[in-house]
Amino acid sequence: MRNFLFFFLLFSGTLVKAQEDAIFTAQVRHTIDELVEFVALPNDALVSSDIERNLRWLTAKFSERGFNTSVLPTEGQPLFFAALPLKEGKPTLLFYMHFDGQSVDPSKWDQPDPYKAVLKAPRDGRWETLPFSALNDSIPAHWRLYGRSTSDDKGPIVMFLNTIDLLRKTGKELSYNIKVILDGEEEKSSKPLPKAVQQYRELLEADYLLISDGPVHVSGLPTVVYGCRGITSMTLTTYGPVRPQHSGHYGNYAPNPAFRLATLLASMKDEDGKVVIPGYYDGIALSESDREVLRAVPDDPAAIHAMLQIRQPERVGAFYQEALQYPSLNIRGLGSAWIGPEARTIVPATATAELDLRLVPETDGTRLKNLVRKHIEAQGYRIADSIPTPEMRAAYDKWITVEEGSVTDAFRTPLDNPFGQHLVRTLNGTFETPVVQIRIMGGTVPIAPFINALKIPAFILPLVNPDNNQHSPNENLELGQVAYGLNALKAILTTPMGG
Amino acid sequence: MRNFLFFFLLFSGTLVKAQEDAIFTAQVRHTIDELVEFVALPNDALVSSDIERNLRWLTAKFSERGFNTSVLPTEGQPLFFAALPLKEGKPTLLFYMHFDGQSVDPSKWDQPDPYKAVLKAPRDGRWETLPFSALNDSIPAHWRLYGRSTSDDKGPIVMFLNTIDLLRKTGKELSYNIKVILDGEEEKSSKPLPKAVQQYRELLEADYLLISDGPVHVSGLPTVVYGCRGITSMTLTTYGPVRPQHSGHYGNYAPNPAFRLATLLASMKDEDGKVVIPGYYDGIALSESDREVLRAVPDDPAAIHAMLQIRQPERVGAFYQEALQYPSLNIRGLGSAWIGPEARTIVPATATAELDLRLVPETDGTRLKNLVRKHIEAQGYRIADSIPTPEMRAAYDKWITVEEGSVTDAFRTPLDNPFGQHLVRTLNGTFETPVVQIRIMGGTVPIAPFINALKIPAFILPLVNPDNNQHSPNENLELGQVAYGLNALKAILTTPMGG
Repeated sequence: MRNFLFFFLLFSGTLVKAQEDAIFTAQVRHTIDELVEFVALPNDALVSSDIERNLRWLTAKFSERGFNTSVLPTEGQPLFFAALPLKEGKPTLLFYMHFDGQSVDPSKWDQPDPYKAVLKAPRDGRWETLPFSALNDSIPAHWRLYGRSTSDDKGPIVMFLNTIDLLRKTGKELSYNIKVILDGEEEKSSKPLPKAVQQYRELLEADYLLISDGPVHVSGLPTVVYGCRGITSMTLTTYGPVRPQHSGHYGNYAPNPAFRLATLLASMKDEDGKVVIPGYYDGIALSESDREVLRAVPDDPAAIHAMLQIRQPERVGAFYQEALQYPSLNIRGLGSAWIGPEARTIVPATATAELDLRLVPETDGTRLKNLVRKHIEAQGYRIADSIPTPEMRAAYDKWITVEEGSVTDAFRTPLDNPFGQHLVRTLNGTFETPVVQIRIMGGTVPIAPFINALKIPAFILPLVNPDNNQHSPNENLELGQVAYGLNALKAILTTPMGG
Repeated sequence: MRNFLFFFLLFSGTLVKAQEDAIFTAQVRHTIDELVEFVALPNDALVSSDIERNLRWLTAKFSERGFNTSVLPTEGQPLFFAALPLKEGKPTLLFYMHFDGQSVDPSKWDQPDPYKAVLKAPRDGRWETLPFSALNDSIPAHWRLYGRSTSDDKGPIVMFLNTIDLLRKTGKELSYNIKVILDGEEEKSSKPLPKAVQQYRELLEADYLLISDGPVHVSGLPTVVYGCRGITSMTLTTYGPVRPQHSGHYGNYAPNPAFRLATLLASMKDEDGKVVIPGYYDGIALSESDREVLRAVPDDPAAIHAMLQIRQPERVGAFYQEALQYPSLNIRGLGSAWIGPEARTIVPATATAELDLRLVPETDGTRLKNLVRKHIEAQGYRIADSIPTPEMRAAYDKWITVEEGSVTDAFRTPLDNPFGQHLVRTLNGTFETPVVQIRIMGGTVPIAPFINALKIPAFILPLVNPDNNQHSPNENLELGQVAYGLNALKAILTTPMGG
């Protein structure tokens, strides 16, 4: 029967399909082997000599695939740039990925060396290490490769390189000109990037930016992300007696800075978690079609609530995705004197709240911080930039120190951008599943200023599994995602817009 | 001229006065020398062998003065008891003092050994150490003796002993029967005392209790204290997501425990610092004559405000002494996640407030804690005794853990108690200055349960200077206070009530 099938395939048009499948499987295996090789180069951006070794590897690997490459100096670690020879009349895609990784603490990993990738298969509820020869017969989708940067973000780089191979081997033509910019210190906040955009503007010129970083939606479905929230921070410190005082002698007399801070913070939000500072949500308008896209995301509230162990969420939005369309005002830390066994019977001298504000494109970080300052003043406070002097304290009752963190902007490409729609259609056609569209991610990527400075539509195309332990010990890449990455990139690179 | 004066005095009734003065001065000097000897015995209640040496010293010194003495076993350090042979028809005074001291860290003292007392005089803004022979000609009131327990509380014990000597030498008769109970672990909270009252009730029987511990009013005037506030504590912990969450992914969705805690705390007090929990101040009524006594205390608000560096105090009372007549609700500590350089972009899992509640006799500690609990429930919380389980969290939205500290009661003897009035008159007549009457001290003394259990009117009669560095390095006793102590005790012991 198998023989019959083989002959049937041999003499039908499907032969090409079978050959293509073999080529594809070999390329998946090659991707894994090449990723193991790349992961073996430690890539903590604090160690310049390691970054240089990674740059040499990238230069070799991109050159092999016919790219012109260069290493672009910056104020920090260099950027790696590569481009295929440009052809007239085709739109240009700029890919952004990063080759540095989070620092590692080997003692916390379940393998001797986080840079020596290991293959693991799930067996009876645990992960069993296997030799790579176990992949010779087949490549089970649920096995995983464990090692630093397997997912974040060397995996996508190697998938990209192997997609180029695949196109060559199957004689497919690129529908776009291709440029690639690889960041060498994303995990250290990509500080040199915004300046680099100015310096290398012509080199980076493109029609669309595709960012491959971060995981697909928790459902595992193909995912396109149109933006992510920005962030800024504020530190508020209120004052009581200049030194902590005996709570017997001065309780009921010296103003308590912790009560003042509590009252101030409580004045900023309502019971639903909504910010009540006037103007905080100004400019945000969700259309019915926006809401449709948000509602289409297959989030499972019951699963989220079980994971967080909460009975009900805040009500800034009617549901999870809607909540992320608004800026947040989050207390990330609170402190005054001591809690626990160290607690002392005192009226504390100060109380401090650390706030972070996640931003959306409609809510500029500086504007929001000014609204918070205005609100604080409206509660009767004088704002000081540093600790108030005795003279200031004698002249005015309620002092607060406000320190402001820097602003990392949000970015968001409109949902109706034609290239975004094209991406979604292409993925949908390739995988024959719904494609998850994320209007904006809750978190912040440090390259947002870079994205905004390029002034071209940008999209995040995640390629790795959601449970990849990114930034943690035991980072991993599910092997099924390698096949997903090659297929997704192949489809995107070969499907012309409107094609 | 001096000779003439001498002869004049010699042949007038004033001769007795001059002789008395000489005897008095010699007794002051003897007090200082005996205190140096007593201070030389380390007295940290954690070291039982040291406490035993102090007990032997006390036994010898009280016996010398004709007291019957005994060492009373307790569950902790023994108590020392002494009594002069009782005489029929005289009221009995029970004196309470303590002979243990705060632990010392010699490295923080300006003298080699905190137990080797040194004499110091103010010279050009600093304290100069002098040999004790410098006291041979005169005993300047503003020189000081530095050493652990010089003020807290061995000084008063030695002043008491030397007053007995003084009365003998000047042929004065005691107007009272005298009992003395000396605590061996007051600085460790006098835990054995309440049980000891039950066990030694007959031995301790008396008409009035006089406590000599703590400093006179900051004005330096003779002071009688009628009571002190009690204390209890509560620890409140609110809950957000079960583990800290990324503030980008879950800010605006996972409830923030710090905002919840802030809102809850803010609901407990108004802008003036007054507790708004119904019933919190119930039962407190200040008569016009109470207010008169409070207003007569020569506090200097400007000096207090300058010391605290506050422009205006809370308004629980119209002025400092009035504020102390009410229970407090003080945040002594606040904590959630991290502040400062450690702050992380998270929604914290928990937030904790440490509260202390200073009590007055009208506001029972358990009743106040129950009012706070009721208030918390009225804000929509379920109260748990420990960390809520996943099942509890799934069943109900707002959980809080409330842990309660033990209650130390307040005590307060009525201002119009005849013996209190007698004490004030006696001090006023002796020193010809106003006497400061403190209706209730803000702080808490651990012997309050002992005082309340004895069921006799109790008064605190402080003998030492307000700036004695009690509980701190460089504890000291101003020598003028020794003369004050001998004079005050002499007058009190020899002036019969109504006499």
